[in-house]
Amino acid sequence: MKSHTEYLTFNLPVRMGFVNITDQVEQAVRKSGVKEGLVLCNAMHITASVFINDNERGLHEDYKKWLEGLAPFDASQRYAHNRTGEDNADAHMKRQIMGREVVVAITAGKLDLGPWEQIFYGEFDGRRSKRVLVKVIGE
Amino acid sequence: MKSHTEYLTFNLPVRMGFVNITDQVEQAVRKSGVKEGLVLCNAMHITASVFINDNERGLHEDYKKWLEGLAPFDASQRYAHNRTGEDNADAHMKRQIMGREVVVAITAGKLDLGPWEQIFYGEFDGRRSKRVLVKVIGE
Amino acid sequence: MKSHTEYLTFNLPVRMGFVNITDQVEQAVRKSGVKEGLVLCNAMHITASVFINDNERGLHEDYKKWLEGLAPFDASQRYAHNRTGEDNADAHMKRQIMGREVVVAITAGKLDLGPWEQIFYGEFDGRRSKRVLVKVIGE
Repeated sequence: MKSHTEYLTFNLPVRMGFVNITDQVEQAVRKSGVKEGLVLCNAMHITASVFINDNERGLHEDYKKWLEGLAPFDASQRYAHNRTGEDNADAHMKRQIMGREVVVAITAGKLDLGPWEQIFYGEFDGRRSKRVLVKVIGE
Repeated sequence: MKSHTEYLTFNLPVRMGFVNITDQVEQAVRKSGVKEGLVLCNAMHITASVFINDNERGLHEDYKKWLEGLAPFDASQRYAHNRTGEDNADAHMKRQIMGREVVVAITAGKLDLGPWEQIFYGEFDGRRSKRVLVKVIGE
Repeated sequence: MKSHTEYLTFNLPVRMGFVNITDQVEQAVRKSGVKEGLVLCNAMHITASVFINDNERGLHEDYKKWLEGLAPFDASQRYAHNRTGEDNADAHMKRQIMGREVVVAITAGKLDLGPWEQIFYGEFDGRRSKRVLVKVIGE
């Protein structure tokens, strides 16, 4: 069994945003030499996500509004978490809806993605450096 | 390490619906010959899900109403995504709540599921063919 | 390829609650002898979750209120599922938001977690025994 580990770093200048990381994950798979296996790709921070969806700007705007509706930002003490000095309780909720991780199949040395599947880093409390782990296993 | 890849195809006659695919995943595991390992099962389309929950019709009706409440269908331009000519922005949201994929353990050659766990294909923008990937790895 | 399987059992005295299981997962990884690989950790019951987030009590209170808002407990027949004699339709919904499972990388024999990542068992219909599966694969 082969394995390969990479850490990607992101620092978004905004509170909420999405970055297409498909090419970086594909490169990690290529470097691993794995032909058949799995790649795990997860946010290492708990106010961020890795998810798979469409590379369409309008949809990303829709996601932002929708998530804001389901889990509104509120720096006040309405959220118990924000009584600790944080202001990001909402980001911990948004991340649960969008998910922490994806696992993608590797077939014949490539990410086995559907026609519109693209891998995104999702940030819900940006303006600082955060890491994404890419772990490849297989043969 | 052994691996095995299958693609299942679904074409639901409705916009939103759920199909129990546990037997098909179990068969893929049997064909793989893997006794100890993991099986990844994911929607290859971004308006569909694979998830694990109860095989109970009433609950599935509840899920449909609940998802419609959290992310209502609206073909108008209320959703930016629908300005591209699509009408399925809501389906991209419903799929994020229900998830893209499941990873299930294989123990002694079988899906290691709890007593009520069943694997479902979840469709949120049906009436066309979509694929599910089943990837088995292990020994 | 090595593999290792464990089942953890939880019986929470409340309907909804969260238990930090990071140490138990770490111990399973140590026992497995796997240095590079993946560990799958999933609820085996469909009204429970395994998720990764912050070990902060205030946030957990926020999660409870938030989930209750998105999927309210209601033992009446408002939910079709509850016409079967159950009263836990809401728990099946809460679990979809928080997720069934996590997959965590193992690097150099340890859980490859970010600085604040902790693994939790999430219970949404407690007061009975439920199991969590821990499956380690790798080398």
